[in-house]
Amino acid sequence: MTDKIVPVILSGGAGTRLWPASTEMRPKPFLPLVGGKSTFAGTLTRVSGRDFSPPVIVANKEHRPLVEEALAAAGIEATVLLEPEGRDTAAAIAAAAAWVAREYGEHAVMLVLAADHLIRNTEGFRASVAVAAAAAAGGPIVVFGVEPSVPATSYGYIRPGEPVAGTKDVRRVVAFVEKPDRSTAEHYIESGYLWNSGNFALTAGTALAELRRHVPEVARAAAAAIDAAKVDGHTVSLDREAFARAPRISFDHAVMEKTDRAAVVAAGFDWSDLGTWSSVWDASEKDETGNAVGEAVLVETTGSFVASDGPRVGLVGVENLVVVANNDSVLVAPRERADSVKELVAALNRLPEKNAGDRQRHYRPWGYYQSLDIGETHQVKRIVVKPGARLSLQRHRRRAEHWTVVQGVAEVTVGMSMDSLEVKTVRENETVHIPLHAIHRMANRGETPMTLIEVQYGDYFGEDDIERFEDDYGRVA
Amino acid sequence: MTDKIVPVILSGGAGTRLWPASTEMRPKPFLPLVGGKSTFAGTLTRVSGRDFSPPVIVANKEHRPLVEEALAAAGIEATVLLEPEGRDTAAAIAAAAAWVAREYGEHAVMLVLAADHLIRNTEGFRASVAVAAAAAAGGPIVVFGVEPSVPATSYGYIRPGEPVAGTKDVRRVVAFVEKPDRSTAEHYIESGYLWNSGNFALTAGTALAELRRHVPEVARAAAAAIDAAKVDGHTVSLDREAFARAPRISFDHAVMEKTDRAAVVAAGFDWSDLGTWSSVWDASEKDETGNAVGEAVLVETTGSFVASDGPRVGLVGVENLVVVANNDSVLVAPRERADSVKELVAALNRLPEKNAGDRQRHYRPWGYYQSLDIGETHQVKRIVVKPGARLSLQRHRRRAEHWTVVQGVAEVTVGMSMDSLEVKTVRENETVHIPLHAIHRMANRGETPMTLIEVQYGDYFGEDDIERFEDDYGRVA
Repeated sequence: MTDKIVPVILSGGAGTRLWPASTEMRPKPFLPLVGGKSTFAGTLTRVSGRDFSPPVIVANKEHRPLVEEALAAAGIEATVLLEPEGRDTAAAIAAAAAWVAREYGEHAVMLVLAADHLIRNTEGFRASVAVAAAAAAGGPIVVFGVEPSVPATSYGYIRPGEPVAGTKDVRRVVAFVEKPDRSTAEHYIESGYLWNSGNFALTAGTALAELRRHVPEVARAAAAAIDAAKVDGHTVSLDREAFARAPRISFDHAVMEKTDRAAVVAAGFDWSDLGTWSSVWDASEKDETGNAVGEAVLVETTGSFVASDGPRVGLVGVENLVVVANNDSVLVAPRERADSVKELVAALNRLPEKNAGDRQRHYRPWGYYQSLDIGETHQVKRIVVKPGARLSLQRHRRRAEHWTVVQGVAEVTVGMSMDSLEVKTVRENETVHIPLHAIHRMANRGETPMTLIEVQYGDYFGEDDIERFEDDYGRVA
Repeated sequence: MTDKIVPVILSGGAGTRLWPASTEMRPKPFLPLVGGKSTFAGTLTRVSGRDFSPPVIVANKEHRPLVEEALAAAGIEATVLLEPEGRDTAAAIAAAAAWVAREYGEHAVMLVLAADHLIRNTEGFRASVAVAAAAAAGGPIVVFGVEPSVPATSYGYIRPGEPVAGTKDVRRVVAFVEKPDRSTAEHYIESGYLWNSGNFALTAGTALAELRRHVPEVARAAAAAIDAAKVDGHTVSLDREAFARAPRISFDHAVMEKTDRAAVVAAGFDWSDLGTWSSVWDASEKDETGNAVGEAVLVETTGSFVASDGPRVGLVGVENLVVVANNDSVLVAPRERADSVKELVAALNRLPEKNAGDRQRHYRPWGYYQSLDIGETHQVKRIVVKPGARLSLQRHRRRAEHWTVVQGVAEVTVGMSMDSLEVKTVRENETVHIPLHAIHRMANRGETPMTLIEVQYGDYFGEDDIERFEDDYGRVA
C-alpha cells in the first residue's frame, strides 16, 4: 500500500518517423532530440520527488542497457519490466498494473507516461498530476488533455463533458475521436475538444478491471507473464511464452474508446510528442532565421532543421527543410512532409539488409560495438565494454581477430579448445591475437569502460558467425 | 618536329562548386562524375590515336598519384609537368609551350584542353580539332566556340567575325565578352555569339610570342621553371622558385582578350564544363521523373540529383534538389542554387580545421590513408600502399602504433635508433608493434596493393607529429 503515485513509464515507441536518428538499436526515447537531453531522462526527472514512488519502467529487453544507462545517469532506482517482444500498450499497461497491484495493492494510483514525449513545465506537470491522481483514486481513468494550439491532424481528440462529481477540473469524456482531417480539426477546436496526450492516471485496480472486461486475453497473458517472470534485483523479465499470447492492441483502442470510466483534465503544461522531425523543429530553440541546426553551415537558408552525429552538413538556398545525417544515412525532406518518413523507412527496409559493416552503434548488455571499416578480407570494430561486464565465450569459423586495447584493461580468455583456455591481462597499447577457430572471450574487470579496436581478418564478417559456449546474458542457443 | 597534334591537358581546376565530392585531395577532374568515368580519363581517351602525340599534362604535384593512376588505367604514356603550386592557366600554358617548343619545335600545334570538361561525341571532337589545328598552324589561336543551347550567365561569350583567309569554318574573333546577365545573354544568342569553351589550338611559337608580348613575367618565369626543372623519366618537376615568380592570371585574361590572333571554330560536339552540380545533373542519365540518384531511396521526389560515396540517402517529397554526401560532409541545395556552393565552402573554410580524424582519403605518392576512428587515446587508419612504394622512414613523439596486415605483404623496418633498425616481413593476419619513439617504415615489395590497419595509441594524432629521416618523395625537411 502506498499513498504515493507510482509512475509507469512506457518506453516502447520506436519512432520510425525520426529515422535515421531513431533506430531499433537506439530508439526515440533515448535520443537527445531537444536541448541535448533524451525524453526518457526528462520523464524520469519529472516523476522524481516525494510525491512519487520509484518508477516502473516497461521496456523491450533489447533496450535494457539504454534504460540502465539512463537510470544510472539520473541516479534513480526503478523497477524495470523487460518485454521479451513488444506487444503494444494494452499488454504493457496490463503487466505494469499486475506488478503494481502485487507490490502496492489495487488502490495504488499509477501515472502512465510515454517515455518519448517532451514536457518542459515540470511545475505545471506536477500540479496537473496531483489533480488527476486525486480524481483517479476514486475510480476514473484520468487522461491529460492538451489545449490545441493548431488544428493538428496527427493527434486524436477528446470531447470533454460534465465535471466528475466532487471535482472542479476533471470532466467526463464524452468521446475519444480518431485523427481528424483539417476542417474537422478546426471544428473540434471551436467546440472545445482537447488533444489526447496519451498520458493518464488510474489505479492498478481500475486498470486490471477494465482490461479484464474489454480485452480479457491481454489481461490474462500479462498476468501470467508477471507470475512466471524472472526477477533479478529490480529487473523483472516477463515470461516470453506467456507474454507472446497477448494480442497486439493499444490501450486507447482496447480500453479508452470503450470504457465508461474515462475522464479528462486539461494539462497545465506544455506538451509535444516529438512525433516527426517537424515537431522536433517546433520544440527546438531557433535562431532569428528560424533555423535549428547545431553545427551545420548555412548560406541563405531559413526555417530549417539539421541534426548530424556524423558528417558536416552544408545547406545553400533552402527553406523549411529537414536534414538529418549520421555516418550511415542521410534524410532530406521538407518540414511539412516530415510525417512521410515512415514510407521512406518502409522503402529502405525492402532493400537487402547489410549483414555487416554498417556503422551504427550496436548496444549490447555488456556495452556496444561499432563497425569502422569493412573490406574483402577485413572488418574493423570499436568495442566498448562496461565495468564488470564480459562478452560471451565464443568462436568464429571464418575470421581471426587482433585486439588492441586503447582504454582500460581487458581480461582475455583464449585457447584452441575448452581444455586449453588461458586467461591474460591485456593493458593499453597491447595487442592480443585470436587465431581462427580459437575459443575466446573478453571481459572488463576494471571500474571504468574498456575500449579496444578489433581487426578481423577472414572472408566473412556477419554477426551470425558466432558460436557461443557460455554467456552471462542467456544468449547460448 | 612533329606533324601530330600535341595535346596539352590542364588539370589545375579545383572544382570548388562540386564540394563535397571535389576536394583539394581529389579534385574535380579525377571524380567519376558522369557515367562512372572521370573527365580526366575521358580527355585522355579523346586525344589518343594516330593524329596525336603523347599528351603533355600540367598538374599540381599533389595530384601526381591521381594522374599516374589514370594514365596507368588508360595505358597511356604522357609527359607530366608538375607544378609546385598552381599559378593559373597563363603560367601553365607558358610552361607547356616552352616544353613543347623544346621537344618538337615552335611549329608544333598544341591542343590545349581542360581536364574537367565533358565531351561525349569523340568523332565530332576530332573533326573539329582537325579543322582548328590546320588553321592554328598558320598562326591564329583557334578557340572552340560552343553553340549556346540556353542564355547561360555562367560562361563567357565570343563574337565571331569574318572567316580567316583560306578557311571556311574558322572565323576571326571580334570580341571576348565576360559572363553576361540574362537579357544580355539572350541578345548574344540572337546575334550568333558562341560560348567560350576555354579549349583551343595554337602553335607553341604563337603561345610563346603572345605570352611574351602580353605577360612577359609569366613567360619568363615559366621558361625558367622549365630550364631548371628536375626531369625523371616522363615526369618534369617545374622549378619551385622560378615558377613562383609567375603572376597568377588566366590565359583568357592575359592573352585571349588582348591578342589580335584569336579565331574561333564552332564546336561540332557536345560540351559541358560540369561547372556546378546542376550541370552534372544536366549531363547525367535520368529516370522518367527526372532524378539522377544512384542508390538513393526516394519517395515522391522529382528532378533531383543525389551522389553519395558514404551514407545511404533518403529523400521524401522534394523537387529539383541536389544532395551530395560522403562520410565527411553532406551538401543540400536546390539545383538552381548549386552555383552558390562556393560561398558555402568559403564559410566552411572559416571553421577551425580538423587536424586529425576527418574521414577523407588522403592521397599520397605511395598510396593513401583514411582515418576510420579517433578517440581520446587512439586513432585507427586504413593504409593502402601501392606495389613497389614505401612510406618515409619516420618517428612519432606522441603515439605508438599497431599494424595488422589484411591484404598483401608488408616489409616493415623498425628500431629504436638508426643503428638498430631491423627489417621484417609481415604477412596477412599478422601484427607488428611500433613502440613510442621507434624509427619505422612500411613498404610494399609485392605486385599488388598492400592494405594494413593501423591502430595508434597516444595522446595526439596530428599529421604534424611525423619526424622524417628518409623519404622517396623528397619530403625530408
